[in-house]
Amino acid sequence: MIPNKKSKKIPLNEFNIINKFLKKLNFNKKTVFNFENDGASITIPKGKELVISNDTLIENVHFFKNDSPKSIALKSIRTNLSDIMSMGAIPISYSMSLSLSKNIDNLWLRKFSNALYQEQKKYKIYLIGGDIVASKVLSISITIFGLTNKNKNILRSGAKINDDIWITGNIGDSHLGFKILKKKETISNKKIKNYFINSYYFPKPPVIIGNKLNKIMTSAIDISDGFLGDLEKISINFNKGSTIFADKIPLSRKLKMLINKKKLDYKDILSGGDDYQLLFTSSPINERKIRRFSKLYDVKITKIGFIDSSKKLKFIGYKLKGIKKSYTHKI
Amino acid sequence: MIPNKKSKKIPLNEFNIINKFLKKLNFNKKTVFNFENDGASITIPKGKELVISNDTLIENVHFFKNDSPKSIALKSIRTNLSDIMSMGAIPISYSMSLSLSKNIDNLWLRKFSNALYQEQKKYKIYLIGGDIVASKVLSISITIFGLTNKNKNILRSGAKINDDIWITGNIGDSHLGFKILKKKETISNKKIKNYFINSYYFPKPPVIIGNKLNKIMTSAIDISDGFLGDLEKISINFNKGSTIFADKIPLSRKLKMLINKKKLDYKDILSGGDDYQLLFTSSPINERKIRRFSKLYDVKITKIGFIDSSKKLKFIGYKLKGIKKSYTHKI
Repeated sequence: MIPNKKSKKIPLNEFNIINKFLKKLNFNKKTVFNFENDGASITIPKGKELVISNDTLIENVHFFKNDSPKSIALKSIRTNLSDIMSMGAIPISYSMSLSLSKNIDNLWLRKFSNALYQEQKKYKIYLIGGDIVASKVLSISITIFGLTNKNKNILRSGAKINDDIWITGNIGDSHLGFKILKKKETISNKKIKNYFINSYYFPKPPVIIGNKLNKIMTSAIDISDGFLGDLEKISINFNKGSTIFADKIPLSRKLKMLINKKKLDYKDILSGGDDYQLLFTSSPINERKIRRFSKLYDVKITKIGFIDSSKKLKFIGYKLKGIKKSYTHKI
Repeated sequence: MIPNKKSKKIPLNEFNIINKFLKKLNFNKKTVFNFENDGASITIPKGKELVISNDTLIENVHFFKNDSPKSIALKSIRTNLSDIMSMGAIPISYSMSLSLSKNIDNLWLRKFSNALYQEQKKYKIYLIGGDIVASKVLSISITIFGLTNKNKNILRSGAKINDDIWITGNIGDSHLGFKILKKKETISNKKIKNYFINSYYFPKPPVIIGNKLNKIMTSAIDISDGFLGDLEKISINFNKGSTIFADKIPLSRKLKMLINKKKLDYKDILSGGDDYQLLFTSSPINERKIRRFSKLYDVKITKIGFIDSSKKLKFIGYKLKGIKKSYTHKI
């Protein structure tokens, strides 16, 4: 539905927004009806199942008001891709509800839609449709669609006792970037500072893993709310525990350096969020397969511990006490 | 994704909201994972195609701040059902992104979720998942899913010359209700006043028609942006025209009475929105079928004119000149 006459006037209308900026994002798929219909359709190939996830990013909550349109576009897409990945699915398309505030203009929309276009090419997805409304605050709500083989969804509940716990990429960089932007942390070296800020602005979920390793993952979750909180969600929440080797937790060289200089609180890294890396479990017999995949697709994957029956999070080599597991449940 | 630590604190958290209010809405479907996963899955029956639509309702744009949680719930669901209906599909499920403002409390959420529960039972749909974020303004973004037979979607583009033009229900009541609420129209009789206000708050799209008549509709659109504007979208936008018999346009007895007393501007009714009735075209050979359906399912359906090649909207019995076709394109 287009906003009705009760909406605030801004010098753009839905027709122009669709034609100038959004039409290019349908990648000429027939079933999107070129935005001329109220909806779109998806045909699911035989033996496949549709997986759906929804993530909403909102000004002053998930991004800063003056963040570049490009970073807002990338973050919107990638946080959603991250969810599809954690279900072991291949992303195919998405719908987008854009709530536009008054300060959004043609230039902003051009940059935003061009960034989406590049993202779509990179991840082989297309825009099927959506809605445009006027709002006091900018918000982007994406519903993303993916495919899995029938009954092959990966659930958070599936970890077995003695399964290895694996994690992709590094954690903590993005959270430090966020703290720098919030002026809660200062780093004088500009290059290093930008490295962390960019980690926050441009998360890089290893989307391909969802598809390539889904047969051997017993449970998975993307780390969006903080490593510890998300680890709980695949272990304690289902009456299992975990043993984690603290020194195995993957950190970037730059982050390690800062921790060693005691410039940073290690606790903070374990509970900070916005990593969009994958935390998953798999039977020990799959270790070689996982390492082979890691080399072949150049995705860093680290074994950090194992699932046990303790119903606790246990850390070896670090005293866990007093750590907030997740800041993120308050809204 | 749940809102992260940047979000405003309100005395509710995502965990409680899901468990106290939203879990009941999954209707115990296994594939929604009881909100424990990042997403959900849908299996599409053989020969069927998934249809998707998205409608976002936002405070001060699509509803008033102090509207009852029930009316906001119903409007959110029914505007989306209206889109599914206009594609000739049967609704099956929906995902919901809730942006909650500070003044949302337990009571509000209980009333809102109870209303959704009743709607779901009425229309045989369930909630598959979604997202909860904190926001300055309340907004509800629903992505709704429906099923059609493969390649049986109804498009806006499909009308043929000489097809009859049909419309369900009445138009104008809802728009008048909106004007009363905005204090742009005064009606002293309380009962009549409430009738119009309720038409605005509780739209009643005849959802069943999408499924039962989809084989004989050549084009369809739900009237959300105003009758004239929406009529254009299935005729002029595709190089066709239409001839409309003004006296056939279905109006409620109460609305007719007000027009006759010259209390109301007829033009306004033709371009007002929020009706959520169906405007569709069909070959003249289907007239008896449509009238039979109308009786059987007790859905008012009126033949109001026909598609022609004029590339214009022509009115017989009323001078169309000077009417705004739709207020609704400005955002």
